[in-house]
Amino acid sequence: MFKVVKRATGSRARLGQLTTPHGVIPTPAFMPVGTQAAVKGITTTQLREMGVDIVLANTYHLYLRPGSELIRNLGGLHRFMGWNGPILTDSGGYQVFSLSELRKVKPDGVRFKSHIDGSEHEFSPELSMKVQSDLGSDLVMVLDECPEYPITEEETRRSLEITHRWAERCKQYPLQEGQALLGIVQGSTFPKLREESAKALTGIGFDGYAVGGLSLGESKELRHEMVDAALSNLPEDRIHYLMGVGTPEDILNAINQGVDLFDCVLPTRNARNGYLFTSQGPVIIKQNRYREDSSPADPNCDCYVCRNFSRAYLRHLFMAHEINSAILNTYHNVFYYMKLMERIRTNIAEGMN
Amino acid sequence: MFKVVKRATGSRARLGQLTTPHGVIPTPAFMPVGTQAAVKGITTTQLREMGVDIVLANTYHLYLRPGSELIRNLGGLHRFMGWNGPILTDSGGYQVFSLSELRKVKPDGVRFKSHIDGSEHEFSPELSMKVQSDLGSDLVMVLDECPEYPITEEETRRSLEITHRWAERCKQYPLQEGQALLGIVQGSTFPKLREESAKALTGIGFDGYAVGGLSLGESKELRHEMVDAALSNLPEDRIHYLMGVGTPEDILNAINQGVDLFDCVLPTRNARNGYLFTSQGPVIIKQNRYREDSSPADPNCDCYVCRNFSRAYLRHLFMAHEINSAILNTYHNVFYYMKLMERIRTNIAEGMN
Repeated sequence: MFKVVKRATGSRARLGQLTTPHGVIPTPAFMPVGTQAAVKGITTTQLREMGVDIVLANTYHLYLRPGSELIRNLGGLHRFMGWNGPILTDSGGYQVFSLSELRKVKPDGVRFKSHIDGSEHEFSPELSMKVQSDLGSDLVMVLDECPEYPITEEETRRSLEITHRWAERCKQYPLQEGQALLGIVQGSTFPKLREESAKALTGIGFDGYAVGGLSLGESKELRHEMVDAALSNLPEDRIHYLMGVGTPEDILNAINQGVDLFDCVLPTRNARNGYLFTSQGPVIIKQNRYREDSSPADPNCDCYVCRNFSRAYLRHLFMAHEINSAILNTYHNVFYYMKLMERIRTNIAEGMN
Repeated sequence: MFKVVKRATGSRARLGQLTTPHGVIPTPAFMPVGTQAAVKGITTTQLREMGVDIVLANTYHLYLRPGSELIRNLGGLHRFMGWNGPILTDSGGYQVFSLSELRKVKPDGVRFKSHIDGSEHEFSPELSMKVQSDLGSDLVMVLDECPEYPITEEETRRSLEITHRWAERCKQYPLQEGQALLGIVQGSTFPKLREESAKALTGIGFDGYAVGGLSLGESKELRHEMVDAALSNLPEDRIHYLMGVGTPEDILNAINQGVDLFDCVLPTRNARNGYLFTSQGPVIIKQNRYREDSSPADPNCDCYVCRNFSRAYLRHLFMAHEINSAILNTYHNVFYYMKLMERIRTNIAEGMN
């Protein structure tokens, strides 16, 4: 399913190929986030055109609305969202712990109230697997407990036990043919617990491994250390996914530590807030300095937006609250991330990393 | 600039060609509305791909934000909005009379307060021409007074005098090379005044003629009568534009009366409200009946949306307040209007109209 094609010489970066039922993904890869079965502001045609190989969708959101059985009855998530490339679904755990109210963790699962209508639900490892099986995603994530940051070592240890027990139960669930299951290393900011978690998950055995529970406010140094603690204790020949990361700089650093896969709302969410990623640093498009600026968002970018529109126009759309502001900014930012990943892959391939 | 290519046998419909500095437009034609220099939810690539030949932009909005001199300094409206096809700009009159506060009509122009920030402005025929010259649109509209409906005959007559005086002043203004100027027939619902207005404008002499002040709540019969009163008294060899109309049915009827050009916010605005135009009648996408409907919005449509997405998915996007709901619905509706116009042109060409 995953193979390392080439290893960098100056770092632990690797060039890889992830094979899924819906296509082969060259890694390191970045997944735009399509929370509710849509990458906000971008059509599937545009995703293809800018070189997106895989998207992420959120189990928690789709379970609540429109419901995973509805999606299954309509032929699965790929057909539903008109995207025939690979899809990774998260387990729903992170959103249960960050979005919903009145959650209560029990050994069997977690009770919570919907952030949409307050209705009560319970997520168990089996239900998360069932929902992801209904969705038919290519990459399935185990249900984990996502503790807040900061948290004591003792609490982390208690939480890890639940996470590992749930991981075992997820492993037992009969997914659809071709669906790959990824375990998630937790352990907050305790290197020893990260190591233990990586070893426990490796013991259970998954198709790939993610590092979760980071990017929650810890320092970059701590994050770096945690990724190292996890990756040093995970199989080298499986894909490594760092969840929820991050800025271009964060991604580059993590790739050098051996991470293969990323997702983050930054390019899409920032776009809607008028924050453009460029080769010259961030462009905050509402600033008055761009009022009559005839240059493109990024003079070194050859995306549709940079080829056709000025910063002055993008600023106008933002100030005028035009929906096309979100559309064009998102297009540029996702393109920027795709080019970044392409460049990194080229660098590894050419031994420049 | 305009030539009639063929006349229908069963009606006064005509097939025509409107030549502008940015391309030739086959008529009858429909212009999607790009109020603030953007057709909401649609990129210029998508406009091209669905066969849009000309778009409309609003002088009032662009004058207030970002300002027409800014747009001129950046190379004009075409370059600003990344659309190198033909553009028609309205005069700003309609929005001054419908959107702004505290307007006061004087012989020289109309004072009003911006709907954005309350700032005071005055629009004169010369200023409207200057703004449209700055924008560099292909088709320029004269400034007219747009009375509300209903209105007495006496008031209409008084208003018409202003409209005709302004039309003369617009005619005197030196536009940019290649810009065509269209007069606007007013006269509310009084056939005699519509006739007088058409004759007065023809006397001044314009590149084309519009019928304004309709679709304001009058009956379809009255509108039909007013269009007849105007068109019977306008030169046959000039383009006829019916402003702000309308539903597919309204458009078809007006074409049979001899109208060549249309604009309306219906396909775009209705799309954002979840109203889809289809060959089987309107689809109100939020309705529960579409919850698990795997069929496309319109089974007889081959647009990107209908080829790739189900009503169930479109309903999901609408219910989940996804920006992609506006994007996909707008795409479909504009495509629907474009195919409608194409079919009508084919019918006239083949003598079936």
